[in-house]
Amino acid sequence: MRLLEERIAHEALAPAPDVLRVDMFLNHLIDTALLDAMGREFYRLFEAQRGRVTKILTVEASGIAIACAAAARFDVPVLFAKKGASNKTLDRETWSAAVRSFTKDSLTNISVAKRFLGPEDSVLVIDDFLAHGAALRGLREIIAQAGAQLLGVGVAIEKGFQPGGRLLRAEGIHLESLAIVDSLDPLIFREQN
Amino acid sequence: MRLLEERIAHEALAPAPDVLRVDMFLNHLIDTALLDAMGREFYRLFEAQRGRVTKILTVEASGIAIACAAAARFDVPVLFAKKGASNKTLDRETWSAAVRSFTKDSLTNISVAKRFLGPEDSVLVIDDFLAHGAALRGLREIIAQAGAQLLGVGVAIEKGFQPGGRLLRAEGIHLESLAIVDSLDPLIFREQN
Repeated sequence: MRLLEERIAHEALAPAPDVLRVDMFLNHLIDTALLDAMGREFYRLFEAQRGRVTKILTVEASGIAIACAAAARFDVPVLFAKKGASNKTLDRETWSAAVRSFTKDSLTNISVAKRFLGPEDSVLVIDDFLAHGAALRGLREIIAQAGAQLLGVGVAIEKGFQPGGRLLRAEGIHLESLAIVDSLDPLIFREQN
Repeated sequence: MRLLEERIAHEALAPAPDVLRVDMFLNHLIDTALLDAMGREFYRLFEAQRGRVTKILTVEASGIAIACAAAARFDVPVLFAKKGASNKTLDRETWSAAVRSFTKDSLTNISVAKRFLGPEDSVLVIDDFLAHGAALRGLREIIAQAGAQLLGVGVAIEKGFQPGGRLLRAEGIHLESLAIVDSLDPLIFREQN
């Protein structure tokens, strides 16, 4: 997606090796026009699944905005997995998975309430980043626990120099990345159709 | 807002005294059509500020979707305060405040990067819930630190039987709540224009 690639090229920072910071338009400050364009692009890429998708699944917090932008096009609800232990306002009956965060070097529990995801669901997973694929593996585990079907995975930015995308594609997952960064220095985007 | 009141009346749960659970359409599973309607309603309520608002400020995670829906109408970016300690992908230079969570009975730090909020900003704060007003006090503290201007506060659901809304209005803050729940049992909504 040209628009996203341009924003990355002109604004994103690489403050440390392997780290790409897009908090000026996506992860902290959110550009709503870009968000809307990303939602439309996800719809275009997964339009074949229109009518089959029952829910869009993501993880809090930075996946929520993008998931909502896509969900508006598909006219389906967003379900976002919560991080950390459950609290008294959250359903105790959850599907859950442990997710390794490489940026924070920690292990986090993610969960969704069982009553919001079941065998009747066909799910499109949307997230902001794909690097090692840890969050997506956690979401797939949750989808499998629920007996739901995974239709595809859409991410805003894939770090092509890390293994997550390659592994998912090797498993036959329909993965669409709006921008694939194959190298940070120099900045190289993978050619896509 | 009639639509939101109807959803609360028909779907929300009050699993414990003073607790209102709206995770079936707002806080965990998000109804995108309702979200869009709420964004439009916030725009109608704060339309006088159109052209002055530079950013919509909220707190992760459950405020993000509603803030984005409102921001799309005002055509401004969303800035969401992050919870917890900073990590290496987040700017260390932050405005921050401590926020007491009454539901979780804990103290959380919320912060925004200094470079995203400054004296040039006029801010509309949007959040999902207003009860004791702790999160909103934290956001106001951050706005004050940044030297930015607070134009108003919009919340989806105000618990009218808790003091946050009364205190904010007493201070002259322009507060708009899409639904004010004055009593949970029996369920009573405050009449609004």
